Amino acid sequence: MRIAVLPGDGIGQEVTAQAVKVLRALSANNGPQFEMTEALLGDCAFDAHGDPLPEATLEAARRAEGILFGAAGTYESDLRPPESRGGHGLLRLRKALDLFANFRPVYAFPELLGASSLRREVIEGVDLVVLRELTSDIYFGTPRGIDRTPGRRSAHNTMRYTEAEVARVAHAGFQAARRRRRQLCSVDKANVLETSVLWRELVGEVARDYPDVELRHEYVDAMAMHLIRRPRDFDVIVTGNIFGDILSDAAAMLTGSIGMLPSASLNAESLGLYEPVHGSAPDIAGKDIANPLASILSAAMMLRHSGGQEAAASLVEAAVRRVLAEGYRTGDIMEPGATRLGTQAMGDAVAAAI
Amino acid sequence: MRIAVLPGDGIGQEVTAQAVKVLRALSANNGPQFEMTEALLGDCAFDAHGDPLPEATLEAARRAEGILFGAAGTYESDLRPPESRGGHGLLRLRKALDLFANFRPVYAFPELLGASSLRREVIEGVDLVVLRELTSDIYFGTPRGIDRTPGRRSAHNTMRYTEAEVARVAHAGFQAARRRRRQLCSVDKANVLETSVLWRELVGEVARDYPDVELRHEYVDAMAMHLIRRPRDFDVIVTGNIFGDILSDAAAMLTGSIGMLPSASLNAESLGLYEPVHGSAPDIAGKDIANPLASILSAAMMLRHSGGQEAAASLVEAAVRRVLAEGYRTGDIMEPGATRLGTQAMGDAVAAAI
Ligand SMILES: CC(C)[C@H](C(=O)O)[C@@H](O)C(=O)O
Ligand SMILES: CC(C)[C@H](C(=O)O)[C@@H](O)C(=O)O
Repeated sequence: MRIAVLPGDGIGQEVTAQAVKVLRALSANNGPQFEMTEALLGDCAFDAHGDPLPEATLEAARRAEGILFGAAGTYESDLRPPESRGGHGLLRLRKALDLFANFRPVYAFPELLGASSLRREVIEGVDLVVLRELTSDIYFGTPRGIDRTPGRRSAHNTMRYTEAEVARVAHAGFQAARRRRRQLCSVDKANVLETSVLWRELVGEVARDYPDVELRHEYVDAMAMHLIRRPRDFDVIVTGNIFGDILSDAAAMLTGSIGMLPSASLNAESLGLYEPVHGSAPDIAGKDIANPLASILSAAMMLRHSGGQEAAASLVEAAVRRVLAEGYRTGDIMEPGATRLGTQAMGDAVAAAI
Repeated sequence: MRIAVLPGDGIGQEVTAQAVKVLRALSANNGPQFEMTEALLGDCAFDAHGDPLPEATLEAARRAEGILFGAAGTYESDLRPPESRGGHGLLRLRKALDLFANFRPVYAFPELLGASSLRREVIEGVDLVVLRELTSDIYFGTPRGIDRTPGRRSAHNTMRYTEAEVARVAHAGFQAARRRRRQLCSVDKANVLETSVLWRELVGEVARDYPDVELRHEYVDAMAMHLIRRPRDFDVIVTGNIFGDILSDAAAMLTGSIGMLPSASLNAESLGLYEPVHGSAPDIAGKDIANPLASILSAAMMLRHSGGQEAAASLVEAAVRRVLAEGYRTGDIMEPGATRLGTQAMGDAVAAAI
């Protein structure tokens, strides 16, 4: 399997190195073989080449069957114009490869229930997926810009969705629900936005192809409440790019284990970019304390969804569960009585469990 | 004091009646006198006059010093075009009266910590205010619309902020922070949206007038996480209309007492619309089980911010706390050992405590 490895910025570099370590352990144990190409994406790419998404990186990503990504952006780049920031390289890569379907599974690991800020009885058994549309919406809509007339500055962005864009992510949502508990919740703001009125209408039309899946609609503000109050009631949640950005981060926080959550961003050809849900966390970068399990579980998702390697994927996931069951923890999920490991030692432990 | 009473739809009617009852109890006990005019807003207005905001209602609101509002919208109206829905009447009223500053205090009542889905130690002591800009942003931006070309439908909305709009809500945020713990957190998506880049720039400029207030910026996705993880770290949170819609509902859910949370929407002349944070809840309407305390506390905010009646406002708040301390609860905040009251009985209890 051809993999583009894009560690990116901050802790992205450390955690991705552990995922690579685990993939190598698979190969060394009669597992699949990988051809890995490493490339720069994010602030590191801007610093080296003046572009957060250099042409060589885009080429490596296009040639790959799976892309293993870390995180993009640092505090410093927040001061630069958007186009030169690390995160912008990621946005362009998503768009260039048409990675429209961003799946973020949120699963409450029984071993880690104590790490959540929510009560145990609220999150026990949470098992949901947020499916966020990733290549359209106000992220990419034009016109957009800032008018700098002194004393009368103004700025604008455009939220826009087309029929084809909504329909394909709706299909992806219904199909994901079919593989799970057959419940799809579509989230919009149809009581205010025309874009949402169309979104709701189109999701309703696509629903006719999936009579076996139960569909409901929620407003984004109400959904933010439901996630906190009764997250167990949800199976697959499909929503647009900006609402998905906010809701998927909220959902990721519920179980208290954001350091454990992988994600996949797929296009119509199942080429996928796989990344931990957590960001670059510059404040803890380089300290060997970041949790590499989200990156390792992202590699497992890559094996499954872009590599067709179900057995290898399950092996990696089982290794992670075993390491947790043995009481090994990184600092973010540490609890009394457990053994605290650094980033590299946690990677070693999972590799050893393979 | 001249008050426009707009009970609106669903439980809005029941809870507003209790707030009116409490105001009357104040008058009967040597408190302020009120001249109340009741008018229709929402689906009830559409049903009666074909318009969710009839001219007579707008006139009554304009003539008032304070507007006591319940909630707008029912499930049925979700099927009508946006302009004829109850919620749209509310949007037009906000815009017509230029009620740009929507304050939503979130306070963890010690008596109700057990009602939250978050752990006690996470929410104990939470005392924050979300200040949501309420008259601009993608709610009102043009162009907007749906293109219904068969097979190629598309829809768009415009997010837009002007210098004046951002500056005035930023000033309101800094001033609110000054009356509290002097911490302001501004929330945007400046890593993606030009509108947010300008928002962040302008808030930073306004900050120069308030060197005694500590300002920080957060991205909206990160803020959704912080709210769930460490809500105690925030004092005043200022943000735009759509991000505020989502974040303020998430914040309201934290303490488990959405039935307890009031809100105020003010214009530059301190005319204000006061309403409970909860919505019309058609599923429980007419059953005498809704919690009227958010509406009663909204009336207290009205006395304070639009009526200059600090003593009367404190009296109402003290009466609510006393009723809670005596163990009276509506169903939404019920706990073992407490006495369960219906909507009207709870209104009677607060009125009696005045
Ligand atoms: C870095 C940023 C542009 C990005 C986004 O908003 O999409 C991030 O928040 C994410 O969710 O992957
Ligand atoms: C009813 C709806 C239009 C409204 C809004 O989105 O502003 C509501 O959610 C609110 O927060 O007051």
